[in-house]
Amino acid sequence: MLVAGRAMRTIWREADGASVGIIDQTRLPHVLVTLKLATLDDATQAIRTMQVRGAPLIGAAAAYGMALAMHGDSSDAALHAACCTLLATRPTAVNLRWAIDAMRRLLQPLAPKERAAAAYARAAGICDEDVAINRGIAAAGLPLIAAAFAQKRGPVDILTHCNAGWLAAVDWGTALAPIYLAHDRGIPVHVWVDETRPRNQGASLTAWELGQHGVAHTVIADNAGGHLMQHGRVDLCIVGTDRTTASGDVANKIGTYLKALAAHDNGVPFYVALPSPTIDWSIADGLNDIPIEERDPSEVTHVTGLADSGATARVRLTPETSPAANYAFDVTPARLVTGLITERGIAAASRAGLLSLFPEMKETRAGE
Amino acid sequence: MLVAGRAMRTIWREADGASVGIIDQTRLPHVLVTLKLATLDDATQAIRTMQVRGAPLIGAAAAYGMALAMHGDSSDAALHAACCTLLATRPTAVNLRWAIDAMRRLLQPLAPKERAAAAYARAAGICDEDVAINRGIAAAGLPLIAAAFAQKRGPVDILTHCNAGWLAAVDWGTALAPIYLAHDRGIPVHVWVDETRPRNQGASLTAWELGQHGVAHTVIADNAGGHLMQHGRVDLCIVGTDRTTASGDVANKIGTYLKALAAHDNGVPFYVALPSPTIDWSIADGLNDIPIEERDPSEVTHVTGLADSGATARVRLTPETSPAANYAFDVTPARLVTGLITERGIAAASRAGLLSLFPEMKETRAGE
Repeated sequence: MLVAGRAMRTIWREADGASVGIIDQTRLPHVLVTLKLATLDDATQAIRTMQVRGAPLIGAAAAYGMALAMHGDSSDAALHAACCTLLATRPTAVNLRWAIDAMRRLLQPLAPKERAAAAYARAAGICDEDVAINRGIAAAGLPLIAAAFAQKRGPVDILTHCNAGWLAAVDWGTALAPIYLAHDRGIPVHVWVDETRPRNQGASLTAWELGQHGVAHTVIADNAGGHLMQHGRVDLCIVGTDRTTASGDVANKIGTYLKALAAHDNGVPFYVALPSPTIDWSIADGLNDIPIEERDPSEVTHVTGLADSGATARVRLTPETSPAANYAFDVTPARLVTGLITERGIAAASRAGLLSLFPEMKETRAGE
Repeated sequence: MLVAGRAMRTIWREADGASVGIIDQTRLPHVLVTLKLATLDDATQAIRTMQVRGAPLIGAAAAYGMALAMHGDSSDAALHAACCTLLATRPTAVNLRWAIDAMRRLLQPLAPKERAAAAYARAAGICDEDVAINRGIAAAGLPLIAAAFAQKRGPVDILTHCNAGWLAAVDWGTALAPIYLAHDRGIPVHVWVDETRPRNQGASLTAWELGQHGVAHTVIADNAGGHLMQHGRVDLCIVGTDRTTASGDVANKIGTYLKALAAHDNGVPFYVALPSPTIDWSIADGLNDIPIEERDPSEVTHVTGLADSGATARVRLTPETSPAANYAFDVTPARLVTGLITERGIAAASRAGLLSLFPEMKETRAGE
């Protein structure tokens, strides 16, 4: 998507042929900083510290992390160690595992001296596939927005939570992909951007990328969505997901479940956009089978932003002695999801719905 | 309640007999600052800038504001002007109007030279009545917590939103009153404190007052409550309300509705605690009849807290060019409210329920 009028991706192979470029997303929205990752450690750190984040981008970064590892040491031991190291960075991210498994299957049979070149090529392929998948999500979701516009004959108000935009992917994004395509096709859209406490990915990343691409938007507290839906100010919700079960339950950023409840209570369609690699066909019961990552309580007690001085500053909100808890995700049960927007089209949030689009997965039986 | 081991109220007449003391709540939780209000302007500013906030305390502060006005100029013109000035400070607060009306009815028939003394006495009376009312709410709500403890035989987990504690009242508070009483009676309680964006009254005020009184608590993002309820980590929700309709709809801090939806979806009892003066017997349909205050968008785009340096600092979360919207309240429909905890007992959230406790209000007909 556009940044200052110029098309950009979130991850790329640098001109030196070895290192990998990324946008340091921890510095957004106040300053655009790009980083060069030169080693496996660099890639691991970028994923762990959320310089790169979002399910699809984590997968792409892990693939390039494998390439960087092979560039440094392409032995069997190094290959095994790289897989383990990268897998440990983010336990909830199912397509981190998917990307690492894909790389391992490719690289294991190769002679060590062939591994680096093959890994870079496959990582680039994973990126291009991700772009193609998300372009497919954009196309699948576009008719929802077009239909809302045809009915309303005014800007379509869409609420989103967290950041499931191009910054979370390689390009286009998932939840925001149909919105970008609608905007590019001339359909007027306006996005209610949940700030998404405690890490504020909406206020910082979603607002930034929508603004750079020229899409109208308004940042709101996470608390406000229910009120807006009660008053007919939301035509459609579209969110992303970190992990989707075979039955259509979705684990997404903490607070997604509350918005789905409000949408359900007010008859607002609630869609979840996802690339099919984030479907975990091995589980059905999201509430009981998806472990919820707990992050550092300091993300709740402290907030980082731009001080009047222009420097980045961190302030404490809570009394010094008050403890805090920081649950990263929640599970939205399939019964609250109007539909799942995938690269192959829109499915009902159910095993039958998903299998109608992905019949080749019929063999996998969740929980068996 | 206790502050550093010493009992304190939120508002008091100073020893000089004229000025009025308050806690500057905008400085909490990082530093305890008390202020002396000497004029009507001081009182107006304290209400408008939320140095005093919370429905009952706003009423008490307005009553003392009338006394300060009469102390300066007790003419009919000054009396009228003081009513108008104070009424304009916070349009949603129904017991601001209640307190001002009570003062006006008292003062109007008096000779100007009698007005100041009468006003101070009545303001002190309003404060004492508020304490008595909230002590009644504490007693009415206590059995809910005692019953939960008897069933669970472990600490009772209670979720609250915003600050409906003693800082929002003169003492005890509304939602927190039964919690303080349970704690003082030796029932183990633990409070999940919603941080309550955008003004963070939970993270700052509720966490501070619970901590000072020695009540176990954990601060969470507003997004987390649904997840906790899904996993059985919340036994009971108790929140306050700024305005309650005759049919039991409640207008409370933005985001309350989302928690009520989650409680309903998970079978968690959702109680609203209120002093009867906050019931607006003249309206029935909260969603259509309660105007929702919109506050400055900078409360969403910026956060104020304590910097590492020990100074108070404000940081920006959003891109410079992204607009924000800031709705202060939402309406939770009566159907989602398990019960209303009042100073006369617990009522069903309905006209019939409220009238069973307040039969003298049978004459008022909402919307007629």
